[in-house]
Amino acid sequence: MNISLAWLPADEFTRILNGIEDPHDRSRAFADASRINTLYSIMRAGSGHLGSSFSAADTVAWLLLHEMRSPFGPDGDIYFSSKGHDAPGLYASLIGLGALPEEKLHRLRRLGGLPGHPDVSIPHMHANTGSLGMGISRAKGMILADRLAGVNRRIYVLTGDGELQEGQNWEALAGAVHHAMGELTVIVDHNKIQSDTWVADVSDLGDLEAKFRAFGWGVLRCDGNSARELDTAFRLRHKEHSGMPAVIIADTVKGAGAVTFAATSMPAGEWRYRFHSGAPATDDYVSAHQELLASLNSLLSRHGLAPAELSVADVALPVKATGPQLPQVYGRALVERALSDDRIVALDADLVLDTGLIPFSETLPKRFFECGIAEQDMVSIAGGMASRGLLPFVHSFSCFLHARPNEQMYTNASEHRKIVYVGSLAGLIPAAPGHSHQAVRDISALGAIPGLVVVEPANSAATEAALDFCIASESSTYLRLVSTPVSAEAEALGAEPLTVGRGRVVRSGGTAMAIGSGPIVLTQLMRAARLLAAEGIELTVVDLPWLNRIDSDWLADVTAGTDELFVVENHYTHGGQADLIARTLLERGSEKVPAFCGIGLTEVPKCGTEAEVLDAHGLSAEQLAKRFQARIRLSTHH
Amino acid sequence: MNISLAWLPADEFTRILNGIEDPHDRSRAFADASRINTLYSIMRAGSGHLGSSFSAADTVAWLLLHEMRSPFGPDGDIYFSSKGHDAPGLYASLIGLGALPEEKLHRLRRLGGLPGHPDVSIPHMHANTGSLGMGISRAKGMILADRLAGVNRRIYVLTGDGELQEGQNWEALAGAVHHAMGELTVIVDHNKIQSDTWVADVSDLGDLEAKFRAFGWGVLRCDGNSARELDTAFRLRHKEHSGMPAVIIADTVKGAGAVTFAATSMPAGEWRYRFHSGAPATDDYVSAHQELLASLNSLLSRHGLAPAELSVADVALPVKATGPQLPQVYGRALVERALSDDRIVALDADLVLDTGLIPFSETLPKRFFECGIAEQDMVSIAGGMASRGLLPFVHSFSCFLHARPNEQMYTNASEHRKIVYVGSLAGLIPAAPGHSHQAVRDISALGAIPGLVVVEPANSAATEAALDFCIASESSTYLRLVSTPVSAEAEALGAEPLTVGRGRVVRSGGTAMAIGSGPIVLTQLMRAARLLAAEGIELTVVDLPWLNRIDSDWLADVTAGTDELFVVENHYTHGGQADLIARTLLERGSEKVPAFCGIGLTEVPKCGTEAEVLDAHGLSAEQLAKRFQARIRLSTHH
Repeated sequence: MNISLAWLPADEFTRILNGIEDPHDRSRAFADASRINTLYSIMRAGSGHLGSSFSAADTVAWLLLHEMRSPFGPDGDIYFSSKGHDAPGLYASLIGLGALPEEKLHRLRRLGGLPGHPDVSIPHMHANTGSLGMGISRAKGMILADRLAGVNRRIYVLTGDGELQEGQNWEALAGAVHHAMGELTVIVDHNKIQSDTWVADVSDLGDLEAKFRAFGWGVLRCDGNSARELDTAFRLRHKEHSGMPAVIIADTVKGAGAVTFAATSMPAGEWRYRFHSGAPATDDYVSAHQELLASLNSLLSRHGLAPAELSVADVALPVKATGPQLPQVYGRALVERALSDDRIVALDADLVLDTGLIPFSETLPKRFFECGIAEQDMVSIAGGMASRGLLPFVHSFSCFLHARPNEQMYTNASEHRKIVYVGSLAGLIPAAPGHSHQAVRDISALGAIPGLVVVEPANSAATEAALDFCIASESSTYLRLVSTPVSAEAEALGAEPLTVGRGRVVRSGGTAMAIGSGPIVLTQLMRAARLLAAEGIELTVVDLPWLNRIDSDWLADVTAGTDELFVVENHYTHGGQADLIARTLLERGSEKVPAFCGIGLTEVPKCGTEAEVLDAHGLSAEQLAKRFQARIRLSTHH
Repeated sequence: MNISLAWLPADEFTRILNGIEDPHDRSRAFADASRINTLYSIMRAGSGHLGSSFSAADTVAWLLLHEMRSPFGPDGDIYFSSKGHDAPGLYASLIGLGALPEEKLHRLRRLGGLPGHPDVSIPHMHANTGSLGMGISRAKGMILADRLAGVNRRIYVLTGDGELQEGQNWEALAGAVHHAMGELTVIVDHNKIQSDTWVADVSDLGDLEAKFRAFGWGVLRCDGNSARELDTAFRLRHKEHSGMPAVIIADTVKGAGAVTFAATSMPAGEWRYRFHSGAPATDDYVSAHQELLASLNSLLSRHGLAPAELSVADVALPVKATGPQLPQVYGRALVERALSDDRIVALDADLVLDTGLIPFSETLPKRFFECGIAEQDMVSIAGGMASRGLLPFVHSFSCFLHARPNEQMYTNASEHRKIVYVGSLAGLIPAAPGHSHQAVRDISALGAIPGLVVVEPANSAATEAALDFCIASESSTYLRLVSTPVSAEAEALGAEPLTVGRGRVVRSGGTAMAIGSGPIVLTQLMRAARLLAAEGIELTVVDLPWLNRIDSDWLADVTAGTDELFVVENHYTHGGQADLIARTLLERGSEKVPAFCGIGLTEVPKCGTEAEVLDAHGLSAEQLAKRFQARIRLSTHH
C-alpha cells in the first residue's frame, strides 16, 4: 500500500530557529517540527518508539538549543539517552540542526540508515543504548576520563521511569556522589508508562524524589513538556546543586504533543498504551500529523512567520509478514498446561504482550508475577519459588534474559532447581530494533550452565512439543523463541515428539546436508535447497532443535553417507550448535567424517529489514545456496 | 605443623542452653560458644570468613533461639544469609543446636564436608549464596510460593553492608513493598567493613535508613552485637511494621566477640582488616580463643554453671602452597606499563588486594578507580572511559566479572571499544570457597563476545607477555588468571612471545598429545606425562593460552603425526578450548584427524582442598594419566 507521508526539510528548521527569538517558543516550535519528522520516519520504517520520542521531545529541544554548551563541538557537552528508545526523536532533532545528514531521515531502521536504538557509528551518538540501566554508569566513566584529560564538560543523561526498575541505576548513584560529579545531570523522562502499561501498576517507583535524595543527589522536578519549566529546572540545577550530581524529574506525557498519541487520551480502564514501539495506523498518523502541523503553524504565525513548508514522499509502507508468532502460540499452550499443573507459575519483566503472557495473566492472575524491568530480581525470585516446589516459567526478550541475570541463572542451576527460561525475540530477526535487541549470543552465554537444556522450536507444533518437554524434563530449560511470524515453509514442517539431542530430516536430498534450528534458519535452508535443486544439486535439511545437547549415535546415523555437512546458526559462530556437532563427530572418531562448515554471525548484528540483514550477514537463502554450491562443487571437483 | 585446637561438643551447647534461663544471657553464651567453634573450624580449614561470622553471631543466635518459629520444622520460619560469607558461624550454631551432625565441624571447606559458602545440599541451608545481592529476591520468591501454598512463614535474610552496593538489592526492594511482604525481614549486618576495607571508603552507603525508607520499607536500627537490643528491634519490627517488609540495620563490629579480631582494635591509620577470609595466625588464634572462653565461662559462672568443657584435637594445619601468584605478578607489571602509557586506568570492585592492584592504587592513585561491589556499574564506567580514549583495565574475581556484568561487556563490545577485563580466581582452584567463587564457565559466557580475545597465561613470564598483548592488541581482552601459587613445574615452562591462536610444545613426546592452558592444567599435564613416562608412554604437552581463538595452520602443524589428542580444561566441557580445537580440525578437513577427547568439568564444582577436588573431578595428574593411558592402550590395541 502506498501512502503520502510529509516531512519538514532541514532548511525549514533553520527558518524556524532563526525566526523565533523567544527561547521558549523557539524550543516549542523546534520540538513540534521534530515530532513531525519523528512521526514521518517511524511511519516509513513501519516501527519505532513513538511514545518515548514524543514525551522526551521538549527536553531534547531545550537541551540542544539552550542548555548545552557546544553540543556538537569536540569538547562540548554531551547528551545521550540511557533507554535509547527515543532515538527516532533525537535523530529528527539532530537532522533539524544539520548535525546529521537529512537523507538519513528516510532510512530509519534500514541497513546503512539510522538504527532502531543508538549506535556510536552515527555522529553525536555517544553510547550504545537500548539495553536499559547503563546510562548513568556510562556518563560517570566519561566524566572521570574528562577529568583526567582536563576537559571541562557537562554530561546529560535521559533515563526512562520504568528503566529505574533496573538495579544498575541505583548501583551507579553512589559513585557519582563519592566523586562529587557536578558535571552530571540525569533527566528522568517520567512519562509513567513503561513498555506494557503504567509504571505504577508494574512496579511502583514510590517517592522518586525521596529515593534520589536518600542516595545523596540534588533533586528537581518540573513539567518536562514545558519549555518554561525546563528552563527554570536547569537554571536551578546549576544554582542550587553545583558540585554535585543532580536529577531533574521531568513529568511528561507519553506521546506528548499530539492528542492522538498522548497517554492522557487513553480511555478509562484501558491498560495498554498502543504507541510504544509500533508504527501507528494510517488514520492515527493523519490526525496526529495535522495536530502537530497546526500547533507548529500557530507558533510560527504568532512570530510572524509563514506556515511550514512540508515535503511529501509517496511511500510504500512495509508489508507486515503473516504467520503464527511462536511467543503467542507458546503463551496459549502454557495456559492449557498450567490449568492442569498447579506447580506452574509465570514471571515476566515488563513484556507481557511480547512474551505471549496475556492469556496466562488473565486466566491465572494469582500465578502470574509481573516483576518489572528487573531481570536479576526476577530470576532470583524464580529460584526462591523453585526451592519451595513451584515450577517457574521466567520470561523476557532473550537479549535481556541470557546476559543480565546470567549469574542468577547459574546460581539457580547450582541448587539443581528446575526452572524454565523462555527467551523470545531470539536471534538476528527482527533486525529493526538493532543490536541491543538481537539475541545472537544466548546459546554461548547459557550453554555451559549445568543441567540447563537449550531448545529452539521451528514452528507452532514444535513449540507445543518443546513446552511439553520443558514441563516433563528433569532438566531446566532455556526455550529459545523467534518472535517474527513463522513462514509457511517452516510451519509446514510440523513436528514429531522430541528426544533430547535428536533432530529429524525435513528434506531428503543428496550427500550434502545442512543442519539448523528455528524458523528463520529452517526457512532459509528450505529455500536454499529449492534454489540448489534448480541447479541440479540436492540438499538434505535437518531440523535439530537442541542447541547444547546432542545424541552422538543419532548424529552418526543421520550424517552417514554425507560428504558435505553445513551447520547454519542464527547466532555467533562461537559456542553454538556447530561447535557441538563438530566436537561430537570428532570425539566419535569414525573413519569417515564429512567435510564440515559452520555458518553463523561473525560480527555485531546489523540493523535493517529482515531481507536486508539476512543477506548482509550471508544468512539469506540466496547467500547460503551460493556458499553451499561453491563448497559442493569444490569437493566434487577434487 | 601440628597444633592443638579446642572445640565445644554439642552436649555442652545443650547444657548451656538448658542452664541459662535469661534469654539475653542464653543468647550471649550461645553466640560465644558458636564463635569458639567457628574459630576452630576456620583454623582447621586454613581459611574461612571469620570477621563476618563473628559480627553476625549475635543476630544468628537471637534468631535461632528466640525469634524464629520452628526454624527446623517443615513449614517453619527460614533464615539465610545473602552474603553467605558467614557460613562458618551459621554451621557452628546449627551444630550446637543439633541441626547438623557434629562431625561436620571438623570438615569445613573439605570434600563432603561443609562448603565455604552455603549450599542447599547441607540441611537448613535454604539458598546457595556467596554471589552477592541475590538474597532479598530469593526470599521474595519463597514468600510468593508460600502464599500460593497457604503456608504462613516468616523469612529472615541477613545481608552485608558492602553487599548493598550491588544493584540487585535495590531492584528487589520495590516488589516486596508492592506485595506487602510483612513476612520478610532483612537484617543488615552493618559491620562497616567490606572485603578489603571500610565501606565508607569504598562506596559510602550514605544515609542507609533514609534509603530503605524511600523505598517504602519499615526501618529499625539496633546494636547487632547486643542481645537486648536485637530483642527490642525484632519486637518493634512486628509491632510497628506488620504487613510490610522491614529492615533492621544491625550495627555490628566486624570480628565482634574477640578483641583480637574486632575491627575496633585496628590501629589508627590501618586500612586493611586482616580477618576477612583467611585463617588467623596461631598467636591470634590462641588469644582470641582464650578471650572467647573467658567470656563464655564468666556467663556460665554468673548462672551457676561449671566452666565449658572443651574437646581438643591435635591437628596438622594445612600447608600453604608457595610460588608466585599471577594476580600479584600482573599487578606489578601493570604499574610498570602504566607509568609509560597514560591511557591505562584501573578499575576495581572491592578486591584491590586479591586482584593485585595495591601497587597500582598506591603508585597511580589518580588513575585507580574503586567502584565497590558494583560490577555492572564498573564495566559500564569502563565503557564510558574507553569512549573518551582511555584504556581501562577492569578487575574482579572471574566469577563476578564474567556473569553479572555480561550484558554490559557485550554492550561495550558493540561499540568496538578496547577494554581489558582481568578475572582473577579463575577456574576450579582454590576449591575451598565453593561454587559461587569457582569460575568454570567464563570462557563459554564470554567467548562469543565479538572482538574479545580470551587468554590464560600459565606462569609469571607468560602473564607479562599476556599483559603486553592486552596493551598492544587492537582487540579487547579477557585475561584469565588463576590465583593460587604457580607450581615450580609451570613456572619453569617460561614463556615465548605470543601470537594469537598459537601455542607451543612444552614437552615433546610420542604420538599422544595433551593441550591445555593455565598453571593448574599444565602442572597436572606435566605430572601426568611423568607418570605415563614411567609406564613407557610418551605424552606431548602443549601450552595453548588462547581460549577462543585458534590459528588453524599452527594447529594442523602441531598435531600432524598425533594419533591421540586430548584437550584438558579448567572449565566446563561446553564452550571452551576443546570445542574450538575440534571444530577447527574438522573444518580444515584434513584426511587424517587424530582421535579426540576433551576433558573438563561436567558438573557443579565441588568444595574441598586442591588435591581432593582435582581428583574428584578427574583433573588430577593421576586421574588424567589413567584416562590417557586407557585410551592410548585402546587405540594401540586396535
